[in-house]
Amino acid sequence: MSDAAAPTTPRERYRKQVRAEIKERAWEQIAAAGTSALSLNKIAKGMGLSGAGLYRYFTGRDELLAELVRDACQSLVDAFRTEVGRGEGDLDGLARALRAWALADPQRYFLVYGPPVPGYSNPAGLTSGMSEVMGLVLSACDALPGETWAPFVLHPERSRDGSAAASTLGMAVVFWTRLHGVLSLELSGQFIGLGFDPAVLYEAELGRLSLSSQRT
Amino acid sequence: MSDAAAPTTPRERYRKQVRAEIKERAWEQIAAAGTSALSLNKIAKGMGLSGAGLYRYFTGRDELLAELVRDACQSLVDAFRTEVGRGEGDLDGLARALRAWALADPQRYFLVYGPPVPGYSNPAGLTSGMSEVMGLVLSACDALPGETWAPFVLHPERSRDGSAAASTLGMAVVFWTRLHGVLSLELSGQFIGLGFDPAVLYEAELGRLSLSSQRT
Repeated sequence: MSDAAAPTTPRERYRKQVRAEIKERAWEQIAAAGTSALSLNKIAKGMGLSGAGLYRYFTGRDELLAELVRDACQSLVDAFRTEVGRGEGDLDGLARALRAWALADPQRYFLVYGPPVPGYSNPAGLTSGMSEVMGLVLSACDALPGETWAPFVLHPERSRDGSAAASTLGMAVVFWTRLHGVLSLELSGQFIGLGFDPAVLYEAELGRLSLSSQRT
Repeated sequence: MSDAAAPTTPRERYRKQVRAEIKERAWEQIAAAGTSALSLNKIAKGMGLSGAGLYRYFTGRDELLAELVRDACQSLVDAFRTEVGRGEGDLDGLARALRAWALADPQRYFLVYGPPVPGYSNPAGLTSGMSEVMGLVLSACDALPGETWAPFVLHPERSRDGSAAASTLGMAVVFWTRLHGVLSLELSGQFIGLGFDPAVLYEAELGRLSLSSQRT
């Protein structure tokens, strides 16, 4: 049963509640000891369930992880859609929503964009949330004049037709990698003691992204 | 006893060997199940030592992790120094050495630059290797003409004297965050299926770093 389907019977509502509590406890474990320390048995113990009892709600660690990644992606999609909804769906608006979302829960950020969890890989259908995130960034790039994203074309030798798709993808990817570079090092505490405000660096990188292309 | 001191007695040589084997097994565990799954008891078992026996070589997980981080930093310093030694210590040379070092062992890369290990923080003295890495990047920036790094000054309002240190730090940090952004997402498999070669993106970002500043 997907959590997305509206539960109709008391039994289904109960099931939904238990699954939500399992996920909440999983997030607590991840925050305390890292994703690879996630233990369904520990969660079951904490909830007064038997291990077998918990497996009635999730078939295993991988299904639980997939749900957490899906929820995390969805929350970023929601944050982006909120910006779009109030007319702030340009790169600046998305970048600020991304930073707020990352700082609000670093573990959630790293679960989506951090190192892979050993022994786990996202199931094929799961990436739709991440595709939607990328789609919103691509739309923001598309809305800019062509000369803005032209310098970011990847593999210019392959896109002799000057296809817009290749260029906007290039800019969307650079938007992603530069902001991820700042955010992930900030969340990892790597800037501590270096004497600058990561927020200033983030804004400066965002500014240079359009500035450097305007000069072309 | 530090591993750096040359062992002089058979007993010291043996101790050094055992510590090296413990570290090797620790890297294998990290590769298989992630840093937070590192277990000294498992390592002891695999080596036919008692838990107490192993603690004669490392006082605990944190000392072992600190050693792994120190070794990882030292290997990056060595890679950078090799470039400097053959006259390739400019930003291009360092960037290529960084990528080769990262791809050779992604877990090592993430241990140094990835998300913090829950419950562990590097001891104060440990950062000397990372400072040396940053020092070599700063030297490469310093060797460039002033107009190259001027656009990257952080907190211009604080450096009204136009201090060179503030500007070169700004460029060194952007060198680091942009390359980390590409590398860490590549190592996490985030680019799979997007239809471009991460090596091309890495080179393009490196090229834009000096290109955009030359235009100022």
